[in-house]
Amino acid sequence: MKKTINKLWGTAFKIQPKEQAVLFAAGRDLRGLPPADEILIPYEIKASTAYAHALYEQQIITESEHKKIISSLKQLAQLHEQGKFKLDPTKEDVHSNVESWLIKKLGIDIAGKIHSGRSRSDQVSVDLILYMKDVNEVLQNEVETLIKALNSHAKKHADTILPAYTHHQHATVTTFGNMLDSYAVAFKKDLQKLKSWHELEEISPLGSAAAYGSTYPIDKNNINKHLGLNQVFSNEIQVMTCKGDAETLMVFNLSMLMNHLSSLAQTLIIFSTKEFNFIQISDEYSTGSSIMPQKKNPDSLEVMKAKASMCHGYLMSLLSLTKAPFIGYNRDQQWTKYLVMDSIQEVALAPKIMTGVIETMTVNQKVMTDWTTKGFILAQALMEGLAMEFQLPMRLAKLIIEETIKKCDEQTGFQLLQLNKVIREYQLAISVSQEQFDSWTNPLLVAQKQMKKIL
Amino acid sequence: MKKTINKLWGTAFKIQPKEQAVLFAAGRDLRGLPPADEILIPYEIKASTAYAHALYEQQIITESEHKKIISSLKQLAQLHEQGKFKLDPTKEDVHSNVESWLIKKLGIDIAGKIHSGRSRSDQVSVDLILYMKDVNEVLQNEVETLIKALNSHAKKHADTILPAYTHHQHATVTTFGNMLDSYAVAFKKDLQKLKSWHELEEISPLGSAAAYGSTYPIDKNNINKHLGLNQVFSNEIQVMTCKGDAETLMVFNLSMLMNHLSSLAQTLIIFSTKEFNFIQISDEYSTGSSIMPQKKNPDSLEVMKAKASMCHGYLMSLLSLTKAPFIGYNRDQQWTKYLVMDSIQEVALAPKIMTGVIETMTVNQKVMTDWTTKGFILAQALMEGLAMEFQLPMRLAKLIIEETIKKCDEQTGFQLLQLNKVIREYQLAISVSQEQFDSWTNPLLVAQKQMKKIL
Amino acid sequence: MKKTINKLWGTAFKIQPKEQAVLFAAGRDLRGLPPADEILIPYEIKASTAYAHALYEQQIITESEHKKIISSLKQLAQLHEQGKFKLDPTKEDVHSNVESWLIKKLGIDIAGKIHSGRSRSDQVSVDLILYMKDVNEVLQNEVETLIKALNSHAKKHADTILPAYTHHQHATVTTFGNMLDSYAVAFKKDLQKLKSWHELEEISPLGSAAAYGSTYPIDKNNINKHLGLNQVFSNEIQVMTCKGDAETLMVFNLSMLMNHLSSLAQTLIIFSTKEFNFIQISDEYSTGSSIMPQKKNPDSLEVMKAKASMCHGYLMSLLSLTKAPFIGYNRDQQWTKYLVMDSIQEVALAPKIMTGVIETMTVNQKVMTDWTTKGFILAQALMEGLAMEFQLPMRLAKLIIEETIKKCDEQTGFQLLQLNKVIREYQLAISVSQEQFDSWTNPLLVAQKQMKKIL
Amino acid sequence: MKKTINKLWGTAFKIQPKEQAVLFAAGRDLRGLPPADEILIPYEIKASTAYAHALYEQQIITESEHKKIISSLKQLAQLHEQGKFKLDPTKEDVHSNVESWLIKKLGIDIAGKIHSGRSRSDQVSVDLILYMKDVNEVLQNEVETLIKALNSHAKKHADTILPAYTHHQHATVTTFGNMLDSYAVAFKKDLQKLKSWHELEEISPLGSAAAYGSTYPIDKNNINKHLGLNQVFSNEIQVMTCKGDAETLMVFNLSMLMNHLSSLAQTLIIFSTKEFNFIQISDEYSTGSSIMPQKKNPDSLEVMKAKASMCHGYLMSLLSLTKAPFIGYNRDQQWTKYLVMDSIQEVALAPKIMTGVIETMTVNQKVMTDWTTKGFILAQALMEGLAMEFQLPMRLAKLIIEETIKKCDEQTGFQLLQLNKVIREYQLAISVSQEQFDSWTNPLLVAQKQMKKIL
Repeated sequence: MKKTINKLWGTAFKIQPKEQAVLFAAGRDLRGLPPADEILIPYEIKASTAYAHALYEQQIITESEHKKIISSLKQLAQLHEQGKFKLDPTKEDVHSNVESWLIKKLGIDIAGKIHSGRSRSDQVSVDLILYMKDVNEVLQNEVETLIKALNSHAKKHADTILPAYTHHQHATVTTFGNMLDSYAVAFKKDLQKLKSWHELEEISPLGSAAAYGSTYPIDKNNINKHLGLNQVFSNEIQVMTCKGDAETLMVFNLSMLMNHLSSLAQTLIIFSTKEFNFIQISDEYSTGSSIMPQKKNPDSLEVMKAKASMCHGYLMSLLSLTKAPFIGYNRDQQWTKYLVMDSIQEVALAPKIMTGVIETMTVNQKVMTDWTTKGFILAQALMEGLAMEFQLPMRLAKLIIEETIKKCDEQTGFQLLQLNKVIREYQLAISVSQEQFDSWTNPLLVAQKQMKKIL
Repeated sequence: MKKTINKLWGTAFKIQPKEQAVLFAAGRDLRGLPPADEILIPYEIKASTAYAHALYEQQIITESEHKKIISSLKQLAQLHEQGKFKLDPTKEDVHSNVESWLIKKLGIDIAGKIHSGRSRSDQVSVDLILYMKDVNEVLQNEVETLIKALNSHAKKHADTILPAYTHHQHATVTTFGNMLDSYAVAFKKDLQKLKSWHELEEISPLGSAAAYGSTYPIDKNNINKHLGLNQVFSNEIQVMTCKGDAETLMVFNLSMLMNHLSSLAQTLIIFSTKEFNFIQISDEYSTGSSIMPQKKNPDSLEVMKAKASMCHGYLMSLLSLTKAPFIGYNRDQQWTKYLVMDSIQEVALAPKIMTGVIETMTVNQKVMTDWTTKGFILAQALMEGLAMEFQLPMRLAKLIIEETIKKCDEQTGFQLLQLNKVIREYQLAISVSQEQFDSWTNPLLVAQKQMKKIL
Repeated sequence: MKKTINKLWGTAFKIQPKEQAVLFAAGRDLRGLPPADEILIPYEIKASTAYAHALYEQQIITESEHKKIISSLKQLAQLHEQGKFKLDPTKEDVHSNVESWLIKKLGIDIAGKIHSGRSRSDQVSVDLILYMKDVNEVLQNEVETLIKALNSHAKKHADTILPAYTHHQHATVTTFGNMLDSYAVAFKKDLQKLKSWHELEEISPLGSAAAYGSTYPIDKNNINKHLGLNQVFSNEIQVMTCKGDAETLMVFNLSMLMNHLSSLAQTLIIFSTKEFNFIQISDEYSTGSSIMPQKKNPDSLEVMKAKASMCHGYLMSLLSLTKAPFIGYNRDQQWTKYLVMDSIQEVALAPKIMTGVIETMTVNQKVMTDWTTKGFILAQALMEGLAMEFQLPMRLAKLIIEETIKKCDEQTGFQLLQLNKVIREYQLAISVSQEQFDSWTNPLLVAQKQMKKIL
Repeated sequence: MKKTINKLWGTAFKIQPKEQAVLFAAGRDLRGLPPADEILIPYEIKASTAYAHALYEQQIITESEHKKIISSLKQLAQLHEQGKFKLDPTKEDVHSNVESWLIKKLGIDIAGKIHSGRSRSDQVSVDLILYMKDVNEVLQNEVETLIKALNSHAKKHADTILPAYTHHQHATVTTFGNMLDSYAVAFKKDLQKLKSWHELEEISPLGSAAAYGSTYPIDKNNINKHLGLNQVFSNEIQVMTCKGDAETLMVFNLSMLMNHLSSLAQTLIIFSTKEFNFIQISDEYSTGSSIMPQKKNPDSLEVMKAKASMCHGYLMSLLSLTKAPFIGYNRDQQWTKYLVMDSIQEVALAPKIMTGVIETMTVNQKVMTDWTTKGFILAQALMEGLAMEFQLPMRLAKLIIEETIKKCDEQTGFQLLQLNKVIREYQLAISVSQEQFDSWTNPLLVAQKQMKKIL
């Protein structure tokens, strides 16, 4: 035997699947989820740094203590970047780990002051807000890139006539470009929602301690000067009364984004069936079968649907979790952290993958267009042309077209002869000319009128 | 037997439950839900009026036709207000009903033109947007009223000392006013979200026909001149690509509002148990038992929790419903209408009822305050005082207080003698004075420092 | 104008849509929901009758009181059947209404005894259990009918060759009958789940009073003798500790049923697109368009998907509602009633409508079958034939077929010449004969082997 | 400074928190989730072994091939147990990993046959079923242990009088034992549901290939002889038509279990507040605060509520995910695996932790009992005693007690004098004796009558 086997699921592909597409479709089979606090290390360092500055400015720590703490935190950040700082699982969480590291390095007499007026509660909250702010901004970039890709392909296919569907059935005509553009609009709305998060929920909790403040003369605004968050809490207890709000809004926004992505995915999946044959997904975004040698599967798109459903569930958990808590922190509220982080890891690659699918797909223009000249797909336009030209009530024109449909064959579609025959049966003193008929049943003309590109 | 029975569930109340509270708690036992389209009648008339204006301005109908249609729609609005226009169940929906009424009144030659370039799809969508805009505005007023009530009671109880809870346990102290204020902040955030809906989702769909436009020279901006909505669709297909977005965001906002209401409700329910006895819910917002003559139940508050859960489910249905639709309208998407309307009927009274509960409850100030002088509730403040006064690391001060707790009895609480003893064990050359001790364990002083009312 | 308009949405149908299908797709546009307790009237009468018997048997009421109460309840049942008993909305609920009616008729000295040892709590619970038992049994019949319809059409299409899909792509072949049968199996599993409800949750709560019993010597088993429910509570408090269990399991079962129905619906919707053209949904189960004269939309099937999503939400509400209640009844738990009733009204017609769709659809056998002779759809069977015949490792046979695919054209499909060429490249001393090749690429033969109808 | 800091959150505990309790409450802060397929390794080996047996019995592989494959799989199992078999992340999944390992060891000529007639689809499904069967059985044991613990404590507290709550208010009396027993009943119901999973969903999918079977003469029943699952699929396609059913039912069962656990948790959390002071959670199941030296928090119980909410979300994702799939496997369905595995990792420890909490908590019998002699808590019993003794209608007795309540003071509770006064006002020729009064207001007697321990 001369040849070797690379991947058990197939050798029939011309282009190998994109690594990211493989990763996206592979889910968590061979990739676990890291501890939540591992991801939060840089945010914990950032928040502790801001807090140390504020402690110094309020004269709770001395200049020398401040210097030592700040330079130690810088060193810690470097160690972490170099992969040399690992969380010790016996030390409960990232907050204990970082503080313990400082105590070990600087001694309790100095490092034992960093927690002055601070609680694990506001630490958890501020790390999470900093993290969410970051990922939300990255996501906005990805969505913008997707919108650009859609806009660019919408332009390219501005005149590619496509059946327009309602109920999965031919309703009238439109263009493939117009359809892509409608998804670009959907993602623009999602982008607006992602942006609104900063206004509605990017609020610094640091300084609220365990949600009831501390007697230390900490200045919440001063702290935030170093954090740079959009707002600061106005009431300490609010940090708990509103616990989970920021996470929930973020996961809601992700759910909306994923639902729009899943709709585009579903449309492309159906368009890429053998039976529709409107488009072909590139090999880069497809996978094969372990048993069927000929298969090319649109896994990247299918997985969009799974990820939408994942977000639904995470959102539901968040809502159920934050229903009816008694005043103040309760340990169950810690789980909001995992929910928002799990959501983000599910969604992270989705816009980028969709951008790739759009940019690499093949569009079978002829197949799409062929359907727009078949059957009665242009009935609405014909009815409207008739009504407008002869000032007929639209309801009467509709009856006439319906009668005409009964007299024509679906294979051949509308026939002018039959149309004029029905008109005569209605005892109307009008007659449609061949020129009129041709114009009202010209797919591109109809699509352009419908899109108000011509009036 | 001389006396008669009024209500089977009890005669022990001094004040009769408020009618609205009864309605709120009664749910749908004796009250069904009206047909969705009954509620939409005024919006259908408004949208049809706007559309008729636009048809005239585009010269699709004549001046005389326009006059007749407009005056007929006015008449219909009056009939409806007088309760004289009922939907005919054999005529499918409000759209067919209104159009049929017009056709019956004006004949098909005139009224048969009103549907020119319009589809049931954009009719459904525009009616729903108009309805949501309305109810959203009403709700904002209700929430503002609730915020005012909370603010006013927060002021009244600015110095009412209350145990501050975490994990349902005494953590430190705060004031009852501060706690109420923290909920006011939560509702302000909800209000901001309710308002953001108009920016994000108040978009006119009228003129998109069945989401692919029509060949009639309809001007979507012209239509909206008469509707006055915030925005207009930018792509016809968007109306379907984003179908359900407006409903889903609204129900999400309601869910957040209800979750905050349910948290306040839960806190008040627990505060009003015999064991806590911190507050008493007014008879106006309580109900009795069919079997226990002495019962006064905080039903109004309990129902808040049910209504939060109802919203969770409606939101879930919306998300599940709008996942992965194929391009264009599909009939299942009609169900978004019922979901948003059901959510609104559940939530409608909630802020008003909460306002009433807040305004009529009795606060047992003494009971609350008594707890703030018991046990070790002021441990955090004592630790912080110690650390600040003697520039001790907070971590060391914490150890000292923990040791002191072991030496004191929970009944009597902290004893200065024991505290100083522990300090000596730590070989620290300091000693806490009675004055210092008294100041650090003064609940009101501690609360005010924590709230930064004094620094 | 000679003709009149019947339905605004179209006159192009040969057969008018089935009334039930119209009702099913119409949702709640023109049909509201009745008050929950209106539906519960017969169950309240049944439960009160059982309770009166038990009171008599325990000698809590006299023979004469018993006689009067029983005959009054019989009379009330008749009045209700004749539509002459209406719930008075000032009397809180069905329980108060029935008891008040009895008191008015028999006086408080007799009727005032019916509530002895009973609470509204156990009344609500028992009415709901009786109602659920009933609807669950009706639903089981409907599902059985659907299974029969599927079985019968599965037999009819036992040899109708169909492309077998994975990832919406041609994977191999199967028969249309086999596909229908797989849904019959799914519904059989649903039926089993519906049946298991009786075992798991059909438990009489009557006699538990407000979940803590009463001091009346009521015998719970005696009561149930007259109710005929599957089981009786074993601990009074259980009725509240498990409050909502029966409703939640029922709505879960409905969700599973609806998900299976929605999958069948989705498959048929895609099969009935113009592009697939595998089946046609009968006019009886389709609807038209208000604007597109040619449309026939599979609304009945689309609505299945909406109703699945409705159940998801109702289930979520139930779970959120019944999370973490404090011991004993709380008013929010009343909402479980509306959730189960709303679920049932959504689902009620679904199996019947699906039965109708299946029984009336047209199957375009030739279109289906044509696809099974195109392209490389039989690659798996060819690979397996090769491997089995020559005792090749399946992994090697897969490589050979993949290479062959690269050498052949998708239009013409596999060519024996190319296959043998690849085999030679692999230096294997074998050769496939025309007869072997034909047998391995015969769709019906392959399907039958795969289904183990031939071995 | 002489002492060192062990845990930042506190040194005030007498007993250190149980390791498992710490793990339970810690969530995923420092502990990630392993790759899903790592957990599935033993099940993949088991399924491959069964399949190899079946291949040999059908003479698809030779005796010698069979021997080699089986002994290799045994070796692999040993390597895995010894921690020496790691999944290679470049090899897609556990199925590819195991097959590749076999190919590497035995060569493609032998190991290349193991996949004959098998697909990744049925491999994924069978591994998951084997895994679920296992964990479901383990869970049943844990729940049984919890039930035993509750039963044992219920016996111990059979006479510990407790206020009986409805609406969080004193309704009547019961015993602490009876309350615990009611949760035991709830868990018995959950156990029954866990068991029903095996009947309803433990179905072998192996042999269905990619859900359309293969032309290999594989015998599904023969395979299952080696797997020992409850049932075998009856239609190949069913494996996909019902894809996710087993996972969804399992997560539903977990949701029900967690909801019951969360209710018990909530009740114990409230009982352990300072204000109730009915019970104390052992230090072993509590945690401290990073800032409040005195805190002991019932984290173990709070986390039960989070985990209930997590299950709600996972269930919703499963339902949303499995709504309306097109016939056959689609990649999104792979995500059902992560959902069921995530649910199980959340729930796994919950029953054990609750068992521990129950077994170690301290019950403050006196505090509970004191409340049962205060106020009007025994009004129902008094009313019932009055009604039974004098054969009064319960409704009349209720009025009398309500009037009596108005005349008495809540501090002193019912007074016989006032009761008889009201009776006289009602012109009834009866009078309650001191003995009767005492008996009707004896908490233990009342509780026992209510529980039918005495009649």
